[in-house]
Amino acid sequence: MIKIKPQNPKGVRDFLPEENRKREYIISVIQKHYERYGFEAIYTPSFERLETLQGKYGDEGDKLLFKILNSGEYLTEKAIENIQSNQLTYGEITKEISSKGLRYDLTVPLARFVSQHQNDISFPFKRYHIAPVWRADRPGKGRYQEFYQCDADIVGTKSLVADVELLNLIADIFQELNLKVEIKLNNRKIYNGICSIVGILDKSTQISTFLDKEDKIGEEKVKEELNQIMNEEQTTNLLKWLSIKSLDNLIETYNKANTSSQELEDGIREMQTIFQYVDKETIGFDLKLLRGLDYYTGTVLEMVSKEMQFGSIGGGGRYDNLTEIFGLKDISGIGISFGLDRIYDVMTELNRFPETLTRTKMLILNLTENATSHYFSLLADIRKAGIAVDLYPTIVKMDKQLSYADKARYTHAILLGDDELAKHQVQVKNLKERKQESIDIKMILSVL
Amino acid sequence: MIKIKPQNPKGVRDFLPEENRKREYIISVIQKHYERYGFEAIYTPSFERLETLQGKYGDEGDKLLFKILNSGEYLTEKAIENIQSNQLTYGEITKEISSKGLRYDLTVPLARFVSQHQNDISFPFKRYHIAPVWRADRPGKGRYQEFYQCDADIVGTKSLVADVELLNLIADIFQELNLKVEIKLNNRKIYNGICSIVGILDKSTQISTFLDKEDKIGEEKVKEELNQIMNEEQTTNLLKWLSIKSLDNLIETYNKANTSSQELEDGIREMQTIFQYVDKETIGFDLKLLRGLDYYTGTVLEMVSKEMQFGSIGGGGRYDNLTEIFGLKDISGIGISFGLDRIYDVMTELNRFPETLTRTKMLILNLTENATSHYFSLLADIRKAGIAVDLYPTIVKMDKQLSYADKARYTHAILLGDDELAKHQVQVKNLKERKQESIDIKMILSVL
Repeated sequence: MIKIKPQNPKGVRDFLPEENRKREYIISVIQKHYERYGFEAIYTPSFERLETLQGKYGDEGDKLLFKILNSGEYLTEKAIENIQSNQLTYGEITKEISSKGLRYDLTVPLARFVSQHQNDISFPFKRYHIAPVWRADRPGKGRYQEFYQCDADIVGTKSLVADVELLNLIADIFQELNLKVEIKLNNRKIYNGICSIVGILDKSTQISTFLDKEDKIGEEKVKEELNQIMNEEQTTNLLKWLSIKSLDNLIETYNKANTSSQELEDGIREMQTIFQYVDKETIGFDLKLLRGLDYYTGTVLEMVSKEMQFGSIGGGGRYDNLTEIFGLKDISGIGISFGLDRIYDVMTELNRFPETLTRTKMLILNLTENATSHYFSLLADIRKAGIAVDLYPTIVKMDKQLSYADKARYTHAILLGDDELAKHQVQVKNLKERKQESIDIKMILSVL
Repeated sequence: MIKIKPQNPKGVRDFLPEENRKREYIISVIQKHYERYGFEAIYTPSFERLETLQGKYGDEGDKLLFKILNSGEYLTEKAIENIQSNQLTYGEITKEISSKGLRYDLTVPLARFVSQHQNDISFPFKRYHIAPVWRADRPGKGRYQEFYQCDADIVGTKSLVADVELLNLIADIFQELNLKVEIKLNNRKIYNGICSIVGILDKSTQISTFLDKEDKIGEEKVKEELNQIMNEEQTTNLLKWLSIKSLDNLIETYNKANTSSQELEDGIREMQTIFQYVDKETIGFDLKLLRGLDYYTGTVLEMVSKEMQFGSIGGGGRYDNLTEIFGLKDISGIGISFGLDRIYDVMTELNRFPETLTRTKMLILNLTENATSHYFSLLADIRKAGIAVDLYPTIVKMDKQLSYADKARYTHAILLGDDELAKHQVQVKNLKERKQESIDIKMILSVL
């Protein structure tokens, strides 16, 4: 027999039961609040047709799509010709041998879903979706090839009520998770307004990609790159505007600037409305926050831990035209997304998981063949009471069974040997407190 | 802008909120019982290295693996050479351009997981895993390319306690799901024993593949195929043995047969032990049940609806050597797997979902700008009480808001307009019963 090394692929993780319970805890908190805020879960498949995914995440994103090889004899004549003629245009070959890809996020599948099922849903459509996404990214700290996104979107309304609701929702979730988080807030209309004042509106998308890299490459390098596509005065001017640290200062600067931009004014008004109804303590004003994705058109936000340096653990924003490419026009929406794996990493690092995640789990020790029927009825009774319980599968030394109970994190052991059988009793051993008590076998349920 | 048709790939499904809630219900029932039986959830990534997956599911299974194209310039020199020389051995080319595949089931990933993490877990290891798997199968009724398996396995014990526990677990789950199901039961040792008595033990694996096809191709066709690899007498003899309908009859036939097989006797003894501790009402004895997978070595089982023709909605069995290929020897285990999508289809067809899946969900109507702050504090208060509530995002005609509330399945509407504001009251409208009552705004929580 050929032996295979047991190993998961690079960039993805296994989770042992204890770790998985912590992940499930985070999911359950997020899900609870999503439901309370009136969101309902939908399901979309893990893979989409490639044409649904491609061209939505920029060139960089397209490269990171995991593509699935077509089944059967997947090399079409065209692909073979292409390869044989040494005309290696990967795009063309890939198109011939792959027609599906793993989803890159949950937003584009949502846009596809909303367009496809527009007659079966009501707008505003509030859906949540907690599921894995895949990116062929170079694995690194906090960067995985498979990771969970926890998305909530309100689709089909321009009302800022939706923006306020999502900001409150984020605050509620992090409060329950016991994490101090800043929600960085910006508005694309303000950014576009500033670009038009500086006279660089036509390059605004390209510029935003550079600005987004500041965390990685530093401010000086960003300036250099900016200077290559516009003049130094414009760079200085742009960066001056973007460094403004509060909405009041922005309004003051704008009023003094002797210039005018309708879009900037709209953006300011949106922010003012939002600030009226949210807890300002959790919000950070950050005009440099742009979030690469081209589809944002209003509010943009990002969540960062106040307690440790970790980069973004979630984000979101408003989009006006996401479903247009699927033929559904004039549908504005706003969405947020929590990065489960990064929140898990932060909470693990900060040791923030509640101790109560350990649940009661009992092990009936297997001590005598005479009690086998009793063991099975005990199992059934205790489970009917909603408590997790197991029977050690074989009759071996009690020490071995107790040591297993410890290692496998059972909280109680139940002893029913020949002696106990004669007395119609069982012994219940609390494995944490190392206490033991005898109980009448019929009374065990009332005691538990 | 190029328009793209919004469409999910063939063979996979979207689920709208109402449908998804039903799926979640099935999962929650299975999960509850898994937990009570002492299983804990683990997590493994959706894709595995191809060498982990290949060669585990037979030739047919290998063809159904979804393979992921390597990233970047994936055409290696060897792949190009192979294609250019027109030596199209797909196996070799695929190996060069793909090194990962989507998991085909949850059992092989479990074997890989147990071997990889053997030092971090205790045996017997009881894990459950509810997650999607993928097969490039031709889509058809009850056959999807992405579907959920709900697996529970007990790994690291040969004890029949495990077999009994899993059979009881299956019965508990279907009882709560309100489905009448027969658990077809067999034992591979009995099958092997019969094969050795008939003198065809060397072909037993090949024969089992034919026998498994009886549902699809019919008994006559199976006979024809069997006759091609053994003589007619052997075929008749084999089928006579396999048509025995009860354990008692099997014992009787064996005792009269004037022949002997240790393996057959072992299998019979195992079944006798199991029958001692399970509810025989739910069990069907079926010597023809073999379940293609080669790795089964003892108990094999399959779950079928007694209420409608649908094929298998779950299955399982005991395996003795599953981790050996990953270098971990002598680990026997037994597992079961529920097919979520098929159970969903059966329950939908039979209309078996409880009505209580509709939860309370309230919509605050947006009636006046004067009440905006009140709306937000009402939202916060009601949510703190654990109830799902929304605010209609814009002030439009009340009729429109109420019609949305109906369509989006809200159970209550809360009215707080200028009149109510003056009286410090809200009106709560039960949308099902079409009843409405006025409540003091401060009392709303105690009333809900």
